[in-house]
Amino acid sequence: MNSATALLQTAADAGCSVCFANPGTTEMPLVAALDNVTAIRPVLGLFEGVCTGAADGHARMTDRPALTLLHLGPGFANGSANLHNARRAFSPVVNLIGDHASWHVGADPPLASDIESLARPVSRWVTTSACADALPTDAARAIEASLTGERGVASLVLPVDLQIADGAQPARVALPSPAAASSDAILAAAQALREAERPMLLLGGRSLREKALVSAARIAAASGARLVGEVFPARHERGAGLPAPERLPYFPEQALEFLAPSDAIVLAGAAAPVAFFGYEGIPGELAPAGSLRTAFGPEHDASASLAALAEALDAPASVPPASAPLPEAPTGPLTSGTIGAALARALPEGAIVVDEAITSALPFFLQSSGAAPHALLALTGGAIGQGLPVAAGAAIARPDRKVVAFQADGSGAYTLQALWTMVREQLDVVVLLCSNRTYRILQIELGRANIAEPGPAARRLVNLDAPELDWCALARGFGLPAERTQRIGDSELLARALEIAFAEPGPHFIELVL
Amino acid sequence: MNSATALLQTAADAGCSVCFANPGTTEMPLVAALDNVTAIRPVLGLFEGVCTGAADGHARMTDRPALTLLHLGPGFANGSANLHNARRAFSPVVNLIGDHASWHVGADPPLASDIESLARPVSRWVTTSACADALPTDAARAIEASLTGERGVASLVLPVDLQIADGAQPARVALPSPAAASSDAILAAAQALREAERPMLLLGGRSLREKALVSAARIAAASGARLVGEVFPARHERGAGLPAPERLPYFPEQALEFLAPSDAIVLAGAAAPVAFFGYEGIPGELAPAGSLRTAFGPEHDASASLAALAEALDAPASVPPASAPLPEAPTGPLTSGTIGAALARALPEGAIVVDEAITSALPFFLQSSGAAPHALLALTGGAIGQGLPVAAGAAIARPDRKVVAFQADGSGAYTLQALWTMVREQLDVVVLLCSNRTYRILQIELGRANIAEPGPAARRLVNLDAPELDWCALARGFGLPAERTQRIGDSELLARALEIAFAEPGPHFIELVL
Repeated sequence: MNSATALLQTAADAGCSVCFANPGTTEMPLVAALDNVTAIRPVLGLFEGVCTGAADGHARMTDRPALTLLHLGPGFANGSANLHNARRAFSPVVNLIGDHASWHVGADPPLASDIESLARPVSRWVTTSACADALPTDAARAIEASLTGERGVASLVLPVDLQIADGAQPARVALPSPAAASSDAILAAAQALREAERPMLLLGGRSLREKALVSAARIAAASGARLVGEVFPARHERGAGLPAPERLPYFPEQALEFLAPSDAIVLAGAAAPVAFFGYEGIPGELAPAGSLRTAFGPEHDASASLAALAEALDAPASVPPASAPLPEAPTGPLTSGTIGAALARALPEGAIVVDEAITSALPFFLQSSGAAPHALLALTGGAIGQGLPVAAGAAIARPDRKVVAFQADGSGAYTLQALWTMVREQLDVVVLLCSNRTYRILQIELGRANIAEPGPAARRLVNLDAPELDWCALARGFGLPAERTQRIGDSELLARALEIAFAEPGPHFIELVL
Repeated sequence: MNSATALLQTAADAGCSVCFANPGTTEMPLVAALDNVTAIRPVLGLFEGVCTGAADGHARMTDRPALTLLHLGPGFANGSANLHNARRAFSPVVNLIGDHASWHVGADPPLASDIESLARPVSRWVTTSACADALPTDAARAIEASLTGERGVASLVLPVDLQIADGAQPARVALPSPAAASSDAILAAAQALREAERPMLLLGGRSLREKALVSAARIAAASGARLVGEVFPARHERGAGLPAPERLPYFPEQALEFLAPSDAIVLAGAAAPVAFFGYEGIPGELAPAGSLRTAFGPEHDASASLAALAEALDAPASVPPASAPLPEAPTGPLTSGTIGAALARALPEGAIVVDEAITSALPFFLQSSGAAPHALLALTGGAIGQGLPVAAGAAIARPDRKVVAFQADGSGAYTLQALWTMVREQLDVVVLLCSNRTYRILQIELGRANIAEPGPAARRLVNLDAPELDWCALARGFGLPAERTQRIGDSELLARALEIAFAEPGPHFIELVL
């Protein structure tokens, strides 16, 4: 087999099952090799940000590395924003980036650029293959790097001439698995929780998965610790019967107030809480001085570590499941509140909610603790344009589950090409597009920056109302049949529309007029 | 005034008249400052690639630096592909990139990343402002860097806390202007042209502007040199009455054959011809050995240098204008040939044709030497997704001229959000979208890579027919009134549609079904 085939076979043997691709001329041997390695499903995106976001969504739902196939420096750069989010989600993603022929790159042809410099800020591992023999082993190292430590993005640059050498063989991948935290760290964390008067357990990364949460609830029962989840979780499993940690507030002054009473904040897979943005006069580091203790980081096995912490605290073997009511059926016009209630009530069991609804998102979170069990995938890195691509990738990862792309309009416009992939692959995604025709968060931020009365220039940069986007037309433009698109302004109509959409396989698009 | 206002006033005083913006929280002081510096027009893009491509288009048509306003590393990365094209077009573009507060970035908040590493591959100048006092002078240095030497992209990273310091003053910009080539270089080039049996003058960069071309025609008359233009010119002024250089072929085997007879190839603002991609067995450097001479590079004043070269050759003071016929009125179904003929015949004088039609483009070029005088703006860096944004920027630069976005479907889908900016700003752009529902160039490249019968996986990565894009729906989705969109499959209908579209101000969208 040639080196491109051996590379892909290496990935397939290591459990990679999909390649989100937007290839060009320098990736043609890899494109052809996908016909030799049928265990890897090729999924085309019309824009690279779709591919990288989908890889992130796929990785979040499978914990296995997803492949991307990208074209040179500009193609990689187009996927960079969603790789930034993948990096912050600790998602294993392996980028295969075609490059010019190794003997030609020195001629500086028009598409040449410094790919490694572009890749480094979002990657924990970057390598350019130096010879054809190395391709399968380089791929093995990339896959291992994506799964080692805190996990993340590995980027492998592949000169096109090296992709076609004959006589290659797949390489073996040593699949790493994360270890539990050391017993010293666990005992120290247990002691901190025991000794504190108002302890908090701050859950991040894989500590927001079901098994980890069950241990976290035992820890809370034993120690009185307040259970809190990070602001933007990669994958938070929630709903009826699951422990329901509170959520750290987004704005720093609210987070400071929220955290102030805690005399011990024990980090469980979460980073130390910091402000998303720095504002004059408000501290950027949010925990009270001296309160932080690290039980374990994102590189550890969260489930095993929390179980060990529960044991160290002699926690009860089980805790009665939390019970939260479903919200009342909403009536009247759509608001973030009525949308949240309608969605919480309608969610089918096992749903995956990809949340990029920004200012429209919070009421859903607050109202859905008692919803059917579901996973919430948030905007980990803050680079908008994540929602629709992550939803596509999550749907490909879990065809047995319904996906909701809970999406704001401003951020949705960045990578709306993902709608085409949803139609092409007939994915079970219900897009709920919250159309308020502004960058509402920026209107808020103008106020926070003491620009109370923005002038016409500033207003023109935060308002999206001239012209209004016709989102249903956009969805139809990407191939969705008209009968699967609708525009809704009333919460009772939304409840009915959700019921129909969840009952019917394939993609649906609902524009919610706020 | 505060430092954000002083920075923008510095740019306005240096002739910057527009800021293509997609801001976020870390740019709010600059957003507010745009209301203080009304000489700079704020233009919003729904995606950063629209902003950077528009800045490139604006710079190509004005030779003055256009500003962009971008949000942190991911926002910059989203604009990187079109900055790559701007770099290859030698377009002066100044990126203003908001960053986290200087006192907060060390806390590694979610949106933090290494912006400079992302910026370097596309920028000739990158700086992060170190203190508030420095902002206006840093902006002055950025503007100067964008205009110095061969010109290009300058990227200035601006921590948000430094944008709001009071008591700032605008800085002075020393506007550089390019010098003519040295007389030694000119004399050597003249000698090479004189002594060669089959000389060629290869024109690139600003040598394809009208004044430079007139001198080039004089040089050809005096020396017998064949006049040839580079494959992807930043701005090629062409049409009836203008000298009509041939165009270097795109594929290397054709270019080799084209160049082979030349015993002296004199570079006039053009780079040495190299293959766009390297193919096994085909040389990447295309000029015959020993044939290359550099008269001047892209850093020189092309018009003055070519005039000097004409003088050195004692060229005739004027050459009768070239005359090329208009193509016959096309009939029958649309093909790249009939589209090219219809467009060449319909072009209004002064039109700006932004060419990202890829495989549909060549017949138009060949048929339009006798069209009304127009400018052709090509895909300089090969990073697709350039066409619609460059068209928007060119239209803002030259509201007195009609712009044609001559666009392929695959590449158009990368940055289709530019359609919204065209509607919002009511730009005089006629979009001609060639819909062949494939990445045709990749089908060709599969064949060139000896993959004559691609399997289903490979086919799935180069075909766009499932589902088909409904481009008129997409245009309507971005706010274009339905009566300004149409889908055409016949060349006579196209001729009529072009006549109407060029007669009526504002954007039009015509999907051409191939």
